Parts: sequence; structure tokens; C-alpha cells
Amino acid sequence: MSKSEAARLVASAKVRSGLSWARIADEIGAPVVWATAALLGNHPMPPEQARRACELLELDEAVAESLRSQPSRGTDPAVMSDPTIYRFVEALSVYGPALKELIHDEFGDGIMSAINFRVDFDRRPDPDGDRVVITFDGKFLDYRW
Amino acid sequence: MSKSEAARLVASAKVRSGLSWARIADEIGAPVVWATAALLGNHPMPPEQARRACELLELDEAVAESLRSQPSRGTDPAVMSDPTIYRFVEALSVYGPALKELIHDEFGDGIMSAINFRVDFDRRPDPDGDRVVITFDGKFLDYRW
Amino acid sequence: MSKSEAARLVASAKVRSGLSWARIADEIGAPVVWATAALLGNHPMPPEQARRACELLELDEAVAESLRSQPSRGTDPAVMSDPTIYRFVEALSVYGPALKELIHDEFGDGIMSAINFRVDFDRRPDPDGDRVVITFDGKFLDYRW
Amino acid sequence: MSKSEAARLVASAKVRSGLSWARIADEIGAPVVWATAALLGNHPMPPEQARRACELLELDEAVAESLRSQPSRGTDPAVMSDPTIYRFVEALSVYGPALKELIHDEFGDGIMSAINFRVDFDRRPDPDGDRVVITFDGKFLDYRW
Amino acid sequence: MSKSEAARLVASAKVRSGLSWARIADEIGAPVVWATAALLGNHPMPPEQARRACELLELDEAVAESLRSQPSRGTDPAVMSDPTIYRFVEALSVYGPALKELIHDEFGDGIMSAINFRVDFDRRPDPDGDRVVITFDGKFLDYRW
Amino acid sequence: MSKSEAARLVASAKVRSGLSWARIADEIGAPVVWATAALLGNHPMPPEQARRACELLELDEAVAESLRSQPSRGTDPAVMSDPTIYRFVEALSVYGPALKELIHDEFGDGIMSAINFRVDFDRRPDPDGDRVVITFDGKFLDYRW
Amino acid sequence: MSKSEAARLVASAKVRSGLSWARIADEIGAPVVWATAALLGNHPMPPEQARRACELLELDEAVAESLRSQPSRGTDPAVMSDPTIYRFVEALSVYGPALKELIHDEFGDGIMSAINFRVDFDRRPDPDGDRVVITFDGKFLDYRW
Amino acid sequence: MSKSEAARLVASAKVRSGLSWARIADEIGAPVVWATAALLGNHPMPPEQARRACELLELDEAVAESLRSQPSRGTDPAVMSDPTIYRFVEALSVYGPALKELIHDEFGDGIMSAINFRVDFDRRPDPDGDRVVITFDGKFLDYRW
Amino acid sequence: MSKSEAARLVASAKVRSGLSWARIADEIGAPVVWATAALLGNHPMPPEQARRACELLELDEAVAESLRSQPSRGTDPAVMSDPTIYRFVEALSVYGPALKELIHDEFGDGIMSAINFRVDFDRRPDPDGDRVVITFDGKFLDYRW
Amino acid sequence: MSKSEAARLVASAKVRSGLSWARIADEIGAPVVWATAALLGNHPMPPEQARRACELLELDEAVAESLRSQPSRGTDPAVMSDPTIYRFVEALSVYGPALKELIHDEFGDGIMSAINFRVDFDRRPDPDGDRVVITFDGKFLDYRW
Repeated sequence: MSKSEAARLVASAKVRSGLSWARIADEIGAPVVWATAALLGNHPMPPEQARRACELLELDEAVAESLRSQPSRGTDPAVMSDPTIYRFVEALSVYGPALKELIHDEFGDGIMSAINFRVDFDRRPDPDGDRVVITFDGKFLDYRW
Repeated sequence: MSKSEAARLVASAKVRSGLSWARIADEIGAPVVWATAALLGNHPMPPEQARRACELLELDEAVAESLRSQPSRGTDPAVMSDPTIYRFVEALSVYGPALKELIHDEFGDGIMSAINFRVDFDRRPDPDGDRVVITFDGKFLDYRW
Repeated sequence: MSKSEAARLVASAKVRSGLSWARIADEIGAPVVWATAALLGNHPMPPEQARRACELLELDEAVAESLRSQPSRGTDPAVMSDPTIYRFVEALSVYGPALKELIHDEFGDGIMSAINFRVDFDRRPDPDGDRVVITFDGKFLDYRW
Repeated sequence: MSKSEAARLVASAKVRSGLSWARIADEIGAPVVWATAALLGNHPMPPEQARRACELLELDEAVAESLRSQPSRGTDPAVMSDPTIYRFVEALSVYGPALKELIHDEFGDGIMSAINFRVDFDRRPDPDGDRVVITFDGKFLDYRW
Repeated sequence: MSKSEAARLVASAKVRSGLSWARIADEIGAPVVWATAALLGNHPMPPEQARRACELLELDEAVAESLRSQPSRGTDPAVMSDPTIYRFVEALSVYGPALKELIHDEFGDGIMSAINFRVDFDRRPDPDGDRVVITFDGKFLDYRW
Repeated sequence: MSKSEAARLVASAKVRSGLSWARIADEIGAPVVWATAALLGNHPMPPEQARRACELLELDEAVAESLRSQPSRGTDPAVMSDPTIYRFVEALSVYGPALKELIHDEFGDGIMSAINFRVDFDRRPDPDGDRVVITFDGKFLDYRW
Repeated sequence: MSKSEAARLVASAKVRSGLSWARIADEIGAPVVWATAALLGNHPMPPEQARRACELLELDEAVAESLRSQPSRGTDPAVMSDPTIYRFVEALSVYGPALKELIHDEFGDGIMSAINFRVDFDRRPDPDGDRVVITFDGKFLDYRW
Repeated sequence: MSKSEAARLVASAKVRSGLSWARIADEIGAPVVWATAALLGNHPMPPEQARRACELLELDEAVAESLRSQPSRGTDPAVMSDPTIYRFVEALSVYGPALKELIHDEFGDGIMSAINFRVDFDRRPDPDGDRVVITFDGKFLDYRW
Repeated sequence: MSKSEAARLVASAKVRSGLSWARIADEIGAPVVWATAALLGNHPMPPEQARRACELLELDEAVAESLRSQPSRGTDPAVMSDPTIYRFVEALSVYGPALKELIHDEFGDGIMSAINFRVDFDRRPDPDGDRVVITFDGKFLDYRW
Repeated sequence: MSKSEAARLVASAKVRSGLSWARIADEIGAPVVWATAALLGNHPMPPEQARRACELLELDEAVAESLRSQPSRGTDPAVMSDPTIYRFVEALSVYGPALKELIHDEFGDGIMSAINFRVDFDRRPDPDGDRVVITFDGKFLDYRW
């Protein structure tokens, strides 16, 4: 079973179960953004977590096997134009060059790793409307020959 | 003077002055990511801040005038393949669909605004190598007819 | 069932029923452009409206379930070259820069929201040939850090 | 002088003059969206209006000549990703298929003309934040062999 | 049944029947280019013509229903590189700018309508090799605000 | 001097002279679509015609030399989205597959040549609005090994 | 049966039969490059040759029917990056402009026809390694109005 | 001086001199396709040939220096749509897959080298119209680990 | 059976068998990178190796037949954006021009063959973290007419 | 001075000086691939090395300043189609998926860093023709949350 097929089955089962991603992540003992990405097919899951997730969502072994397998990452460009995802793309086009400058200013020539890396998601109450707060946290890697 | 020409002059003057972006932002009284983005041409600067920045960097009035003008945003796609910026693009391709799911789970149908929005940049010491920490903080907007 | 599959079933059922979109929208108590977009898969429908639409069009529960689900928006670029849709794309290429100027002139730096937003569709009789009148009505959002 | 060079000179002169597009349009006796589009190079201006606009903005005859000349329309795709213009593109990707359906339902097979066509721009006060209101008004043309 | 599926069935049936497009068009009482385009899915056919065409080609009611339905026009770009079709694309790249100039010279600012429009196809005997003669005939539409 | 530079000078001189393309073509003794295409850079002109055109438009010898030189044809794709030219592109996407079918039906496997080829332009008065009439007339070439 | 499906069946049958393309071409009495191209779907085959090829490869009548039908030519761009085919594409990018110059020098303004055209394939023994020799042979067509 | 600038100067000088490419190639003692490609910038010329070519065309030392330098090959894609060059591209799309099959049939898995490679150009008289004859002759290279 | 289908079956069987690519390569007596590429469909396998691989992975004869067949190489561009593969693409964008310069400096005008070519893969222990070591080893081919 | 302008000046000066990249690298005490990449603008050089390189190549201080500055990496895609560079791109399309599999087999889920990374270039004599040997050597980074 392909990981995209497994992701579709996970999404349907989640709706049937009424569980939130936060609750599923909690049940399998994993950070919520990581767990959601893994269940959508962008990270291989350790066997025990895959088993636990499928139990929770009443999905069979073939799904668990797919969730454990190594992904070929790289999302469909069409997905990037969904308005909810596009706002992140737009933010990068506005702030990306500034972030590059600040990384070089503070750390020197190099990059923020997207591999030794985590993303956190939070909701912050605000009287003018609650806010989505997303944190990218990656190890700095300097160009080192 | 176009905003990209002004950005080139700002970058050269910054090197000559030896000032960091953080210091420049501090001197003009603006958040550092915003100030860097504005000096690179992605936000119009209030006249007083444009004046103060040009004074600090010993740039003339034509630069200040350009910094104050309204930008047409939208970065050159070639810029997006610079390795330091590309890591963010890659992170979105891996975690974008998960962030979309979490926004809908927590807030309902809608988006994180990229307009009523701020980005913070930080360095966090870590014994395994210091980390780049970037926070996106945007107001949730629900699809509201 | 995918939302595009549901849209195909809705379209066929509409032809069989002989109902107009305006009549369907009226029956489910929703604005006509919103209702049409939702039935074509670009908005999630509240359960009661999805149920009512499927009743009216004699479609089964699986369609209603699909209509209620969260879409990944973003239309196929091929669709944009259909002549009826392309005229809107062309109008944007001719008038888009002018609309940007007028928004900045009147409201300052920011955007017209496409989320806190509605579209109305009307026919206006005209002796030289009736006219299609479409109104975009979105909240102004200023760049606010 | 190319029309894009003329548009750059118009934009600078407008800032120096402190005039709004609405005021310029008023002075030359033309609808505001049309006048702005024409001054940005997307419509040829009648000689008298071109002359009056250049007088008002203190621009010389070469600009007026360029404003009168026939344009090759078709905006740079890069311009379409500016956030203020992109919201219109996004709205079309969400509502375009619905507008096509409604046009066919109401008028039959055909299009809304983008040539026998006008666009109006308005600001509507709203206690929750003022709104941008844009109206597309085009003659219906049926496929007629 | 999709219109492309119907087009495939029409094409096969035409080969079996040994009828030419000209003969089919004649039988259903429609101009030959229009009839061919409609049978290939680019125009909705009136019910009587769809019925007559299916009778002639011994195709069932599902095909007729598809032929009557409203198309989403816009041909696959791959089709445009077929050598027989590509010669038209090449002719446009060589003569398109000249045709634009001549339209503006003769009619003023505007377009030749592709909606209030017909195409005729003819063969003209010629001692040096017979010629394909194709006529585009569209109403001029001026930019009229 | 490049052919695009020469085309720009021709266009300006034509405006100054007040001559129409039809008149220029007449003066140099060439069909009007061919002459316009050649003056815009898509055909090399015979020396005598180039000389005569430059005399008429009061352009110097360097222009004539450029007009005589061999072009590299192939128009900028951006030009193809100009609304006046785009209508031809759209007509091909709607009728191209039908024209291919008709060519094969009438002549067999082969193409209409775009080299042994002419284009005529005409205006036909019509009480419902005058019409643009364009004729493509090319020799049929069969696939012949 | 589509021509690509027929091409797949031909390719499998050829492997089973152990026949070379040269031998198949010989048996059906056609030049080898033409025969291979036709069997892969890029030329319609005369009925007798299609019948003979299917007999030889033990394929049924549906394949023969597909081989006889009119193709829509135009290969998948992905195919062009296969290394064996890509070397021809690269050769064109290196020598294409020179071939254009030589054609114009020798023949005047025009093209080598790709329709009244043949391709031959040969192997030439060479002590440093045998060589692939491919000849393109097409009628010159001058731009003739 | 860039190689494209040198190519432009060579082309102008050739027109002034009235020499054909064949004659220039002859004078510098090189095959005509190679010489034309080298003078257009796609091969570095040995110093003596560069000197001789510049002498012949009355071009100065800076051109000769540029002709001797190492090129970055890879022609502008826009050039590929010139009709004279495009016919070769089209021939590849029609016959490329057949040539791949024939190479594998005759030689096994591998390619025709585009480096150990030559191209010859010839004109063959023919009562039905003279023909362009182009030969690609490259060493076969087998995939050899 | 297509080679991509065979590759999917190989990948699943490998997981079931618990064998590493290195072990499979060893068993069939082939270099590990070559063997992995061949099993994924990018090289035809000699019959004995295909048979042995299928025996080892408990796959049937149809897979072996597919593994022996001639591939059309050229990977899906989407695959190139997988982060593990993308790092190689990025390395080429940073070091490609330098490698070109060094090849020309050391060997003259020509290329490193990708056909008479091998790739080796190794792991090198390192106290700061083990390293991936990949060697490209190709015959130099000079441009030789 | 932009880094691409500096690279052009370095390339010309290298030709004038008759020095090889290996010699220049040796003189400035840096690995040869790194040094070449840095002089072509893809790495910032330490001040002392930039000074030494400019002294050696008789270039002035403005070049040294440019060589020291932080690059925006990301090579022009056109460069990637130069035949010498393209062979690496092709090798990745043939062997990239195999290298991904081998990395995951040997190291688990993660990547070879392109930042903590070096490339070596070598020439290996071989009686069948000398070989280009290029080694990519990068730290393995595992996906670590």
C-alpha cells in the first residue's frame, strides 16, 4: 500500500473516530506536528507507534506496514497552492531573504538544518482574534569542508 | 531608484559600517526581521525610520525615498533555491500538509494570516550545536462569507 | 469519496433534476456563489446543508459526507484556460496592477482578504445585450506586525 | 518611450505631486480604474486626456505620446504573485468554476466579455473593518457561429 | 460519460461507418468545422443534432447525452505539438503580431471575437499541389468601458 | 541593428507618418500581412522593398539593412497573451483538433504548410458589427518518405 | 485500442519472436526507420503492412486496426531525457544554429521539410569503435507567399 | 568579449564580406558544420584558425580571443522554436523513439556519442525540389561499468 | 510488466526478506550501486542475474523478464525533490561550474562520460559522525570531430 | 561588484596568467574544488585568501572585496544543460534513486549533508583513456526531532 493511500485511509478513519491530531499524537507518545506529518506519509513511524495509531483508528495491518516504510518525500506542487498552505509560501517569499541575512549575520555562512529540526504548533489567545504560532527550530550547520 | 537597487546599496553600506542587522533594527526602533525585510525592499518604511537608517549607513536621500515607497512583493524564484532559503521551502514541503491539518483541527476552516503576521528570529545555545529558532505568528482568519 | 468525484455526481444530478444553481442555493438557504463553489468542492458544507442538497438532488449519504469534508483548494491550472474562466484571468492581467494601486491609495499597505470575502453574481438587463455583473467584496487587511 | 518606462515616470510624479489616482482620474474626466490602468500602460489614452494627465503630473510630451500609443497588454507573471494581486488570483481559483457554472445556468453557453467590460472600485465602511468592493461588469457573449 | 470518452467513441464509430466529417455535418445540418469540433467535445450539441449524429454512427444514448452537455474547453497542450496542429501555432508566432497591428490599424483598439466567430475549411485545387484554406471570421469588439 | 530594434523604429515612424500598414504595403508593392510581418522582423525584405519602406518612413540605411537580414523567427511567449493575439490562440485550442481531423479526412496524412503559405486580412461590413476575416492558405504536404 | 497500447504489445511480441526491427521491416517491405516509427505509433500503416506485421508478431486484428489508424504525433517530453535520445537533443542544441545558417546560405530563406522527409540508420565499422550513422533527408521548402 | 557578442560580430562581417560559410570553412581548413558552429560560439577554435577567420572577416584580436575561449554550450530554448530549427526538433519527436530502438537492436544498451561525433551538411539535387541532407555520425558507447 | 511495477515488487520483497541491497548485490555478483539501480529499473540485467535476484527475493518469472528488458531511463522530476536526493542536486548547483572548469583545465574540451562510468558508495567512520562517500568515475571523452 | 562580475574577471585573468586552477588553489592554500567554486562565486573567501588570489591574478581590491562577500548560491538552470555539467545531472537521474536506497539501508532515514561536505577531483590514468574521478564526501544527518 502506497503512503498516499495510507494517508487517505488515516484521514477518513480520523473523521469517523472523532479524534483530534493532538489526541492521536498524545496516544502514540509523539510530538503533534511530527505525528501528523508521519501519518500523512512524510516520516517513517517506529513499529510500535504505527501499531498503536492503527489500533486507535481501527485500521488494519497493511496501513501500519505502510506507515513504517521509508517515504520518498516531496509534496505535490498543486498542494502548495491551497490557501492555508500558500500563506506559508508567501511568508517565505516576503521574509526568506531577510532570514538568510540574519542567519549569516548571527551564525556565519551556513544553513538552518531541515533534518535536525523540529516544528511546533500552538494557538495563542488574543483579544483581537486568536493566533496561529508556528516555530521552526533547526540546528545551525556551517559550510565546513 | 528601484527598491532592489536600494537593497544593494544598503547591503554594501552595511558591510562598510560593520553594523549587524540587529543593531540597525535597534537604532531605528523596529523588530529585527521586519527591519531587515524592509531594508531589503519588502516593506515600505515610515519616513523617520528610513531617514534614520540612511543616516546610520551613510546613504543619501534617494535611498530613503526608495525605502519609503510601496513595494511590489514577490521574490525572484531563483532566490528560493539558495541553500539557506531552500531549507525553509523543503520544511514546508515536508510539514505543510500537517500544519494545514492542525490549523483546521484547532481553528476550523481558514488560514493563518500572512498580513496580520510577524516573524521572530532567535539563536538558542545548545551543547550539540546552537540552533536557529524562527517563529511565525499570524492571526487566524476563518472563511467568513 | 473525493470532493472531485462528489462534484461530478452533483453536476450530473443537477442536469437530471432540471434545477438551477440559484434554486438549489435557495433550497439550502445559502448565497448562490458560495453554494455553487461548495457543491463543486471548494468549501466544506455544514451537515444540514449537505443533507438537504443531497435530498434535493437524490444523491446518497457518501456524497453528503464528502461535501462536509475539508477541501484542499486550488483548481487545476488547465481549468483556468477554459474561455469562460479565462476572461477573468485576462481581466486581472489588464486591471490587477491598477487595483493594487487603488487599494494602496485608499487603504494603505495591505490586501483585500480572500478569506473574509464574498462574491456575488448578477445579471443586468441591457438593451445592447444583458451583462454579467460580479462583485468581489473582501475585508481590507493592513500589514500589521 | 516604452509604456513601462512611462508608467514608472507617472508613478514617481504621482508621489511628488501628492495626488491620488481618484483625483487624477477626476481631473482628466475618466473612471478611476480605467484611468489608473491607462496610466500604468494597459489602455491607450485619448490625446486630450494624455495631455491633461501630463500637465497635472508635470511630465513632458514624450510621456504623453507613450500614453496615447497602443499597448501590448499582458502583465508580467511575476507581478501576479504580489500578495495584493495574488488574492484576486486565489479568489478565481476558488470561485472561478462556480462563476462558469452560474454564467452557463443563467445565460447559456458563452462568456462574460473582458473587452466590452468595466471594473469599479469602492470602499465600504464596516464596523468590523472597512471593505474593498470590486465589481466586474461585462457584456454576455454567446457562442454564435 | 466524459466528453473525451464520447469523442473517442465517435472517432471509432466514424471509422467503422466510413462516413466523412463533411457527410456527418451535412446529415445533422451543421457547418462542418462546428460539427467536428462539437463531436470532439468542444461545443454542446442541441439535442436533436446529438440524437441524429448518434443514430448515424450507431452510438447509444449515453454518448448523445455527453454531446449535449456543456464542455470545459481548453485542449491538452500536448495536442498542440502534433505536427498538423503545430503549423497553425507556428503561423501565429510568425504572423500574430502583424495581425494585431492590422486589427488596430483598421478597427482601433480591440479584438476579433473568438465567441461570435466561425471557422471555415476548404480545399482549393492548385496545379502545384492542392491547398488547405481556412478562414477565421469573428466580430470585431472594441474596448468599450 | 537587431530586427526588434528595427521594428521599434518602424512602429514609431509609422505613427509619425500617419500612414497605415495597408498604405505602406501598397507603396512597396507587397501583400499587406506579409509586409507588416516583414517590417516587424519576421521576414527578410528584398533590398528594393526595404529601401522603399525606409524612404517612405524616413528611416536611415541601418534600418533597411536590418530589414533585409535573415530573421530568427519565434515570437516571445509573453506576446501571445496579449488579448488581441490570444483570441487566435484560444480559437486554435477550440478548433485545432477539428481542423486536424478535416485535413486528414480530405487530404490524408499530412499537414498544411506554414512555409508555402499566405495569410490574408480583411474587414467585412456587417449590420451587427463589422467582422475581422483572416484566411490561412497553405499547400497540403503529405508525409512522403 | 490506443496506439501507445499497440506499441507496447508490439514491443513485447518482438522480444518473444526474437526478430530484429530490420527483419520486421524487411518482411513488410518498408524502410527500417519508417517501419519502426510506424510500429511505435508515429505513422499510420497501410492495411496490408499492418496485417503482415501482426501475422509475423502473432498479434491480433485489434492491433492491426490501431496500427492503421491516424496518429496524433508528439512524444512525451519525459521520453526526450532518456540518455540515448537526449544525445540527439544535445546535438541539436550545439549544431542547430549552424545548420540553420548553412540552410539559409545554401538555399535561401526556408526550411528542411520534416514531412517530405526520410531518416536512415546505419552502422559503420570503425577500428576505434563502430559508429552510429543517421541521415536526415528532407526537401527544402522556401518561404513562398 | 562574450562568445555571443563575437558571434554577432562574425555574422555582420560575413554579410559585409559576401563570403559563404562554406568558403570561410575552406579558408580556415575546417569542416563546414564544425566551423560554423565554432564561429557561432559552440566550439573553441585553435588559435591559428581563429586568427585566420578574423583576418578573412576583418575582425580584430578581441574577437579571435573570444573564439579561442572555452564555451559554455547550451542554446537558448527560444532559438529552438525558430521554424528552420524546429523541424529538427519535430523530427526527433517523431523518429527519436525509433532511433533508440534501432540503436539498442543493433548495438545493445548504450548511446550514440554526441562528443566523439560529427555532422555533415549537403545539398542533393532532385527534380521534385532539391533536398537538405544532414548526417549525424557518432561513436557508439555501451553502458560499461 | 513495466519496470516501475517490477521495482515496486522488488522493494516490497526486499523488506519482507530482510536483505540489504549490499547483500543482494553480493549474491548476484554485481557492484552494489549498479545492482540497486538495475533492480529499480535503470539498467537491463543479464538473464542469470535477473533469475538469481528473483529467486533470492521469491519473485516470479514476470519480474525477471521485466528486469532483463531495456529501460527508458529518465527519472520523474518529482523524485529529484526528495530531500535525500536533492542534496546531490544542490551540490551540483554549487560545485558543477567548478567541476566543468577543472575538467577543461586538466583534460581540455570534453566531458566525463556518464556511460563508460561507475558510481561507488561507501560509509566512512568519523568521530564527528560517519560520512557518506560517493565516487563518480567516468572516462574522459574529448570533443573529437 | 557582483560575484558573477568578479567571476568573469577571475576567468579572464586566469587565461592571461596561464595558471591552472590547481596552481591557484595551491598558492592560496585551499583544496582545489573549493577554491575554484569560491573564485567562481559560490563560497565566500577568507580575506587573506581573497587578497592572495587577486595578487596572483593581478586583480584589484574591488574583486577581492566581492570574493569575500556572502554569496546567494543557486546556479542558472541554463548552465545545467552545458554538456560537461549535464553528464552529472544525467548520472543523478540514473543513479539518484539507488543512492537514496543505499543511504537508507546503511544509515537509516536521513541525508548526506551538502553543507558539512567536500568534493574532490582527480585524474586517473587508464590505458583505455584517462578517467575523471569525483568524490562527494558528506556527513550523514539523520532525521532527528
